[in-house]
Amino acid sequence: MVGGGPGAFIGAVHNRAATLDGLATLAAGAFSSDPAKSREQGEAYGLAPDRVYGSFEEMAAREAALPADQRIDFVSIVTPNHLHFPAAKAFITRGIHVVCDKPLTTTLEDAEELCRLVRQHDVVFALTHSYVAYPMVKQARALVQDGTIGTVRKVVVEYSQGWLSTPLEQTDSKQASWRTDPARAGAGAIGDIGTHAEHLARYITGLEMAELFAEVSTVVPGRRIDDDANMLVRYQGGAKGVLFCSQISLREENRLAIRVYGTKASLEWHQEDPNFLYVRRSDAPMEVYKPGHAHLVAAAQRGTRMPSGHPEGLLEAFANIYSSAIRLIQAKRAGQPPDPLDLDIPTVQDGAVGVHFILTALRSGKEAAWVDASYVAPGL
Amino acid sequence: MVGGGPGAFIGAVHNRAATLDGLATLAAGAFSSDPAKSREQGEAYGLAPDRVYGSFEEMAAREAALPADQRIDFVSIVTPNHLHFPAAKAFITRGIHVVCDKPLTTTLEDAEELCRLVRQHDVVFALTHSYVAYPMVKQARALVQDGTIGTVRKVVVEYSQGWLSTPLEQTDSKQASWRTDPARAGAGAIGDIGTHAEHLARYITGLEMAELFAEVSTVVPGRRIDDDANMLVRYQGGAKGVLFCSQISLREENRLAIRVYGTKASLEWHQEDPNFLYVRRSDAPMEVYKPGHAHLVAAAQRGTRMPSGHPEGLLEAFANIYSSAIRLIQAKRAGQPPDPLDLDIPTVQDGAVGVHFILTALRSGKEAAWVDASYVAPGL
Amino acid sequence: MVGGGPGAFIGAVHNRAATLDGLATLAAGAFSSDPAKSREQGEAYGLAPDRVYGSFEEMAAREAALPADQRIDFVSIVTPNHLHFPAAKAFITRGIHVVCDKPLTTTLEDAEELCRLVRQHDVVFALTHSYVAYPMVKQARALVQDGTIGTVRKVVVEYSQGWLSTPLEQTDSKQASWRTDPARAGAGAIGDIGTHAEHLARYITGLEMAELFAEVSTVVPGRRIDDDANMLVRYQGGAKGVLFCSQISLREENRLAIRVYGTKASLEWHQEDPNFLYVRRSDAPMEVYKPGHAHLVAAAQRGTRMPSGHPEGLLEAFANIYSSAIRLIQAKRAGQPPDPLDLDIPTVQDGAVGVHFILTALRSGKEAAWVDASYVAPGL
Amino acid sequence: MVGGGPGAFIGAVHNRAATLDGLATLAAGAFSSDPAKSREQGEAYGLAPDRVYGSFEEMAAREAALPADQRIDFVSIVTPNHLHFPAAKAFITRGIHVVCDKPLTTTLEDAEELCRLVRQHDVVFALTHSYVAYPMVKQARALVQDGTIGTVRKVVVEYSQGWLSTPLEQTDSKQASWRTDPARAGAGAIGDIGTHAEHLARYITGLEMAELFAEVSTVVPGRRIDDDANMLVRYQGGAKGVLFCSQISLREENRLAIRVYGTKASLEWHQEDPNFLYVRRSDAPMEVYKPGHAHLVAAAQRGTRMPSGHPEGLLEAFANIYSSAIRLIQAKRAGQPPDPLDLDIPTVQDGAVGVHFILTALRSGKEAAWVDASYVAPGL
Repeated sequence: MVGGGPGAFIGAVHNRAATLDGLATLAAGAFSSDPAKSREQGEAYGLAPDRVYGSFEEMAAREAALPADQRIDFVSIVTPNHLHFPAAKAFITRGIHVVCDKPLTTTLEDAEELCRLVRQHDVVFALTHSYVAYPMVKQARALVQDGTIGTVRKVVVEYSQGWLSTPLEQTDSKQASWRTDPARAGAGAIGDIGTHAEHLARYITGLEMAELFAEVSTVVPGRRIDDDANMLVRYQGGAKGVLFCSQISLREENRLAIRVYGTKASLEWHQEDPNFLYVRRSDAPMEVYKPGHAHLVAAAQRGTRMPSGHPEGLLEAFANIYSSAIRLIQAKRAGQPPDPLDLDIPTVQDGAVGVHFILTALRSGKEAAWVDASYVAPGL
Repeated sequence: MVGGGPGAFIGAVHNRAATLDGLATLAAGAFSSDPAKSREQGEAYGLAPDRVYGSFEEMAAREAALPADQRIDFVSIVTPNHLHFPAAKAFITRGIHVVCDKPLTTTLEDAEELCRLVRQHDVVFALTHSYVAYPMVKQARALVQDGTIGTVRKVVVEYSQGWLSTPLEQTDSKQASWRTDPARAGAGAIGDIGTHAEHLARYITGLEMAELFAEVSTVVPGRRIDDDANMLVRYQGGAKGVLFCSQISLREENRLAIRVYGTKASLEWHQEDPNFLYVRRSDAPMEVYKPGHAHLVAAAQRGTRMPSGHPEGLLEAFANIYSSAIRLIQAKRAGQPPDPLDLDIPTVQDGAVGVHFILTALRSGKEAAWVDASYVAPGL
Repeated sequence: MVGGGPGAFIGAVHNRAATLDGLATLAAGAFSSDPAKSREQGEAYGLAPDRVYGSFEEMAAREAALPADQRIDFVSIVTPNHLHFPAAKAFITRGIHVVCDKPLTTTLEDAEELCRLVRQHDVVFALTHSYVAYPMVKQARALVQDGTIGTVRKVVVEYSQGWLSTPLEQTDSKQASWRTDPARAGAGAIGDIGTHAEHLARYITGLEMAELFAEVSTVVPGRRIDDDANMLVRYQGGAKGVLFCSQISLREENRLAIRVYGTKASLEWHQEDPNFLYVRRSDAPMEVYKPGHAHLVAAAQRGTRMPSGHPEGLLEAFANIYSSAIRLIQAKRAGQPPDPLDLDIPTVQDGAVGVHFILTALRSGKEAAWVDASYVAPGL
Repeated sequence: MVGGGPGAFIGAVHNRAATLDGLATLAAGAFSSDPAKSREQGEAYGLAPDRVYGSFEEMAAREAALPADQRIDFVSIVTPNHLHFPAAKAFITRGIHVVCDKPLTTTLEDAEELCRLVRQHDVVFALTHSYVAYPMVKQARALVQDGTIGTVRKVVVEYSQGWLSTPLEQTDSKQASWRTDPARAGAGAIGDIGTHAEHLARYITGLEMAELFAEVSTVVPGRRIDDDANMLVRYQGGAKGVLFCSQISLREENRLAIRVYGTKASLEWHQEDPNFLYVRRSDAPMEVYKPGHAHLVAAAQRGTRMPSGHPEGLLEAFANIYSSAIRLIQAKRAGQPPDPLDLDIPTVQDGAVGVHFILTALRSGKEAAWVDASYVAPGL
């Protein structure tokens, strides 16, 4: 693991998720750019001291130098955003597979270089847009793909939070500090959560954006980065979209929600109640899908570990991505074809699309104009 | 009543609402521009034949000629939109009070003339933006006014329907026919329901729009009017807004919903579950307000006719507006000051603001630009 | 109307419901056993003074003496329970149709006599178990009748309130006073609301009770009547039931709810959210029925007055019973066969079954034993 | 681990839960009474072959013979019910700590012997009534303990499932087979899930049962064990209860739900939506508690691993019990006092109370009478 030192919350999530299915154990880490803190975290994880590093460069170089059966199989990159690129590059170029947090990078050039490097070095690369790995999101995507929804006409997607309603970055909150720092985060609400909304909509509908209009705001006085953004979208093919994200929507916790309206049916899903998917077909009672049932598609069924009615949460969604990535690595090593279900994970190209979206939204907000949002990532 | 002939649904709603509290009975009507249909409807209501008219002009003239103790006290105008203006004018200028459906008119000039006429003739005028008369909406407004919410930062309001997802106007649906006819409706989704969303947000928050950006669409092929519109709003004072309305959001029924985010608390309300108001204060459990309780403000308490837990619906909300209007008429006649609670009804000025909003949204959509949305109605 | 004087809430509900569809107007009343209060209420309703009576006996006698085209067509009896019997008898025996509040009577003998009198005098008699007149309850019944549910195996029904959690009858609450007075109410929670739960379950499932076990409690110190009762039920045919009612379930408002589990599907309905019916079929997503759709049965469709998504409440359910009763009266007068949909109202026999249930529950509680709960009302 | 061989689902849950916080790893197991299956499962877990045993007796004996720093620290017993007792005894008597699935045993004698053995051998013993380890259940308990609820007057608790609506045990379902076999399960619905409901109510309210009345049914033809049970409860101190459980409530998944009504407030919680706790105080809006907030009690806060709005599920609840048990073991080994928060886990005495409840319910059902349900487990 790279990142996830003391004070981070997402590092522990990644570790639990990576190991949940017994397919991996944490073997090495560069948890902080401060070697003492990295050591401290490594001890907390019970790692051998010689596998705890003071920087990702050191870790990449020294792990790659280990015999194949001793070195790490893949790395989880959970640092602040600006380090995703150099860290990922350091491992990819040494042939080490990567699971990386979103957003992929802070510039499009970096994102595209990662796309090329992943292809060149033939590594597995998974981006932890974890919300799309909920079983009900997979079911939603299947309902679009199998024609149940018909042609998509309108998408409403949001990601509303309230935790930055006050200038929390002026306290000692480590999370607030880097996430509102343009240098480390790149973008604010759009980069932190808007990109999840964009990806969720794209994952379910398969639609690519054509044009985008954004109103980007910094609401909390003194903040140096966007904390609220509201957008209108024109998708390729003609569907319309409303996409908004916010970190100043007071007392919202983690309200990621989507609605897709088609010509035959519409669907709705809320991340805070992830085990319910609402489907409304023409002139029939609304249907409520839940995990764990035989009437679900295979992708949705595999994402569940307990019988229906035993609630599973975000950790299991995260683990779905990790376990798929690990199985892809195992297949690659064994020279076997991948299980198609395992290919259903966010890729480096998804990351490039996300970075393009972030930058496009910021540009539209600045220009107060519809801007071209179409984009094809290298390798797609 | 003017309008509400055979095939209309809203006429019967108005009649039930007007009479619900026993403060009025239907005495006369011009239910259709077709005299035979008007007579048919009049008979269905059990009216005396000489009080059933073939046109609103005839009705206004002849009712006004009756002795004061025999003529109607007020008229309900429930026609297609383009007739609101001439009908209202005919009655106002004869000193007859008016309850009128929204949108007020199809042009701003007409709307402003009605504002002036109402003042000049000193009549009571109520616009049936009925959704704001739900008790929980009144409570929501009070929570803004009393400072519970703090300064409003963001508003998300929508009105999503799906009943026009197909070209229903090409069938014999009377409703679909006039509501998608530019000549009779003026505007489509924006005029029919977007204006409810605009008014609801304004009613609760007290905020006036400063600028507006709209994407206005006609989604169903062959339709001659807008059926979907998504907007970004800049309110005076700096709050941001997302407002969208749709008649092609398949299988949505009547999803009018609002969220208001402030510096101290946020609130949320859904019209399809109107008896629940969600309030989230900083670091406290979310609160769910329901009607019928002593802890509600007086305006919310008076809007309820049964003990808590006995669901009331839209009819009662409609009746709240009617009964307030009637009590204002009674007070005026008696030369007494009005009960302040009865002044809490949508006015002719609200109607003018609504018409300005509709026209501004259409203009922004056409120009694909932020446009000035500020407006002060005559008499405000 | 008999009853419904100053301080009653249910009288106004009955009046609004009876007149909602324009099929009736209030013409006469004996609103209180105190003639002055009766007059006061009559004036509030705008009645002619000579149609306001000091007692139901006087009203029945004098109305019956009026010419047929002048006298009342039916009477609404909304008094405390102990007066239902004499009042109903006074009108039935004079050939005047009756709409009566529940429970029918306070003794089984009285209930059975009413059954016989209704038949003998050939009057229409409707009992206002209003909750079964919600459209979604009618749909639920249809889903049992058409075999969707399969054989019913288990019923869970409750009616929980909290308004009597304190000794409210020791204040000046008129409602609490008579409803906790054994002489006027007959029974407490069981008679006031438990009987609604019993009827709702019977209406939807068509099942008759075979045996009953009850734990009947008086929870609030000083109270003279039951305020909480929990029961187990054995239905004829073998289904099992759980039925509980309470007036001391603090801060419950009016939680009447039912679940029916069958061999093919199960259903669930909550009175406080009456426009949602949940149906769970084997290995399919749960379905949520709502009013106003073409896929509903005719009985459910007719119980709705507005398009889907426009919430209707208890008033409309009440009105469904009144309007059916009035149409039955009209058909009888016209010598025409009744519309079968209008026969779907609670009858005097339903009332007798309800009284038998109340008395059986009290007896089981006293004996702490399973008791025979089977019963066939006269005329069934 | 003892049990959890191929085909079991709960074994994997226990393993993930035990290791979730990085406090334990699976070191040894006797996964099946069939040595080949045990080996197969051990390989799947990647265990050393010499730590995979063919029986729990062998495992207990050989692990206990290992040096202290090599042998297992505790054992998870996840077998069918009839093996809980001998397995637990084998480890306890060798000084090995135990985490055991519910119900504790199939006879009260066995349960009481375990109580004595746990005390005698001074081991940590945790029973996985995992539902009480949800943060919102801990908050609910705190609201009773701190007086928010006042005196509890009524409890309604249920555990409804539908998975045994058909004779699934006649297929090759391993789960259905042993859970409906009187010899291996002891009791059916009551033992499998009714005991969870009993424990949940006791955990939150602190109330002990005084008397119980049960209707115990076997609904599915050919089944040899109870699959539905409905009970009335008299708690010590006078509160009343309704408790029901079912495995034939078609299409219910895992509906464990509780309501507690007190003199000052009431609360409600649903396991399938575990991150919401509803609290209704006298004359105030209902409150909805969610995890991850500073206004929660410490016990509720510690049970959460992610920020608010990131859904956590049953796995985390399970892990809360495991991690507390492990910290108790660590403290005991270190000779340090336990963290009081870690003592908040279901104990062997809770297990004995549960067994007494099961047997009492069965007896009441057989006798069709109120029976004494009071019980004090050894060591309480």
